[in-house]
Amino acid sequence: MEPIITLLTDFGLQDGYAAAMKGVVLGIAPRARIVDMSHLIPPQDIRWGAYVLRSCYAHFPPGTVHVAVVDPGVGTDRRAVALRAGGHLFMGPDNGLFSFVLEMEKTAEARLLENPAFFRPKISSTFHGRDIFAPTAARLASGAAFESLGPPVQPMTAEWARPTVTPDAIRGEVLGCDRFGNIVTNIQHGHLAEFAGKDAFQVFLEDQRIPVFASTYGELPPGRPLALLGSSDHLEIAINQGSAADFYKACAGQKVRVVRVG
Amino acid sequence: MEPIITLLTDFGLQDGYAAAMKGVVLGIAPRARIVDMSHLIPPQDIRWGAYVLRSCYAHFPPGTVHVAVVDPGVGTDRRAVALRAGGHLFMGPDNGLFSFVLEMEKTAEARLLENPAFFRPKISSTFHGRDIFAPTAARLASGAAFESLGPPVQPMTAEWARPTVTPDAIRGEVLGCDRFGNIVTNIQHGHLAEFAGKDAFQVFLEDQRIPVFASTYGELPPGRPLALLGSSDHLEIAINQGSAADFYKACAGQKVRVVRVG
Amino acid sequence: MEPIITLLTDFGLQDGYAAAMKGVVLGIAPRARIVDMSHLIPPQDIRWGAYVLRSCYAHFPPGTVHVAVVDPGVGTDRRAVALRAGGHLFMGPDNGLFSFVLEMEKTAEARLLENPAFFRPKISSTFHGRDIFAPTAARLASGAAFESLGPPVQPMTAEWARPTVTPDAIRGEVLGCDRFGNIVTNIQHGHLAEFAGKDAFQVFLEDQRIPVFASTYGELPPGRPLALLGSSDHLEIAINQGSAADFYKACAGQKVRVVRVG
Repeated sequence: MEPIITLLTDFGLQDGYAAAMKGVVLGIAPRARIVDMSHLIPPQDIRWGAYVLRSCYAHFPPGTVHVAVVDPGVGTDRRAVALRAGGHLFMGPDNGLFSFVLEMEKTAEARLLENPAFFRPKISSTFHGRDIFAPTAARLASGAAFESLGPPVQPMTAEWARPTVTPDAIRGEVLGCDRFGNIVTNIQHGHLAEFAGKDAFQVFLEDQRIPVFASTYGELPPGRPLALLGSSDHLEIAINQGSAADFYKACAGQKVRVVRVG
Repeated sequence: MEPIITLLTDFGLQDGYAAAMKGVVLGIAPRARIVDMSHLIPPQDIRWGAYVLRSCYAHFPPGTVHVAVVDPGVGTDRRAVALRAGGHLFMGPDNGLFSFVLEMEKTAEARLLENPAFFRPKISSTFHGRDIFAPTAARLASGAAFESLGPPVQPMTAEWARPTVTPDAIRGEVLGCDRFGNIVTNIQHGHLAEFAGKDAFQVFLEDQRIPVFASTYGELPPGRPLALLGSSDHLEIAINQGSAADFYKACAGQKVRVVRVG
Repeated sequence: MEPIITLLTDFGLQDGYAAAMKGVVLGIAPRARIVDMSHLIPPQDIRWGAYVLRSCYAHFPPGTVHVAVVDPGVGTDRRAVALRAGGHLFMGPDNGLFSFVLEMEKTAEARLLENPAFFRPKISSTFHGRDIFAPTAARLASGAAFESLGPPVQPMTAEWARPTVTPDAIRGEVLGCDRFGNIVTNIQHGHLAEFAGKDAFQVFLEDQRIPVFASTYGELPPGRPLALLGSSDHLEIAINQGSAADFYKACAGQKVRVVRVG
């Protein structure tokens, strides 16, 4: 069975950074199947990286190693961690990238990445993706023991990963916008289910009420805004065949509110 | 032999949508070799998707499964189809994406995608790429019978796939522009061959005459416009080391005319 | 052992050009593992292509075949070459793309690509990537002899690949800028080592002095410019969590100077 390693970074696709990581992986684990999750996370946008990781990882087979590197603190003393959760392995900087994974998988174990035997001999202070994460992932995928990575650790969960649910409202925020201009929020299906049935609430983006809650874009005529549960079970705001991101001038961090009607 | 599955979508590369499809494929067909044909088809641009598919598919080995998802009607009652043609398999929404394949391969068979045993158990109304097309492609690539997909169907061919050939002119249109600013039309080598030899005609984009017909960019000095047969045997309008798309302000749907000289 | 073939081009990812190359490779070498090094080299930017190739190739296992196609002269009489150097194979147009490889690997052997038995039967005058380089790479990766490609040749090295080192200064230039806005120069670690220790010199971009030489971005507060040795051992100019390219309005070809202090 060929091990699968996914890569999620903000390295872009033009400069060869992701390719250098792949070269390192294939030198250690020649049979690894490397899948790009994304290399176009906006530079240093940890929360969009965390969301994309959350929306993808569970679709891969158990045993997949997910490497996530959105790492504004590279070369400083920020910690590097690995997680074992839900049958998957994860590794990257401990800066909140794994917040949604930790929300989904309540029994995650984590280790510090401190075993230099897994790293490349010379470590660039600006490219741990190539020199620490890629070789460690390749060794884990080749059967190295999770416990050999380093001591147990408690990984961090970022504030923006957890909406506030009170009896009168769910208060969350915008995580970012996808290619189609859909506005993705941190409010998930589970939050809505514990709050109310779908016909019984209204969605606000800052002060603007979203007129309709529907189940797919095509239910409305082109150009009409709607709220819906997206394909990763997060609450989204969209416009059929248009860009809600442009229409609402949305950006990460804007407040989203769900309130009961009547 | 490892089956090959290609993916052509307008999902972009930043948000993980293509990666989710790959995770689903690898869960079903762990030995599949997945090749990105493109994920940067402009959003909902069916005709450019159809062109890119046409320019690539025949270069893959027989037996390849090509998944094409440019799908403005996802979640509505638009049909989903699979084709068997020229030794290849294709699947996607029945919205014209396969128009050029159907022009090339006169003996295509088609089936509706209606067998839920091939789908994921829970189907998002906005992401059939992941929940219907990816798992069905993985099962076909693993040996499932084409006939088991659903009943036979007549797939659609879009208007824009067929230029009009009359004794005095070929009338076609612009399909889109590539990264280099080359303007690609729906007029193919075969249309020109039945119409005239290459020295005997002139090409017009709307009202503007393209001054030269040549066989490669480098035949002309930098900056000079030319018409030529591109590498996929479609008529293109180009500028050596420049962008014809910018120069002519080209966009999809503009009229292209080939007339006889003298 | 599955052979590895990397692809570096300026074809972009939207139009299927890279996919057509992969289809051709897999038709000849079904077990080849194809890795995208980059398809987003700026159109016709040979020097950035040469840099990205240099920053990546050595991270791949010995025996890897690297195909590089940034080829403004396609279809003219520019030469096509293959190199064997440092345990790797390379091929592409002989236009300077391999300049840094030739600087790194002093014992490179080179051959002209002149054996039509390796090419596709019909060769497009605009797409040698698909019709010449991809099939030749697939055959080399499948065990064809390097010597069978064609006669020995002396490949070219471009001017911009070699900074001038004199007793008073290193004079180099900007190669381009990466996704993060880091300005990459042609001055390498080896040039600095032979010139001075790192505390003893200053870096200038045209007339502007870069205030600090540091070892990673995070050593300085956000927004502060610095010079550093990047992860590929080239001198870079960067801004912590910002874009030096924007700040300095950098572009390829600008002069970079390193002088001794005091």
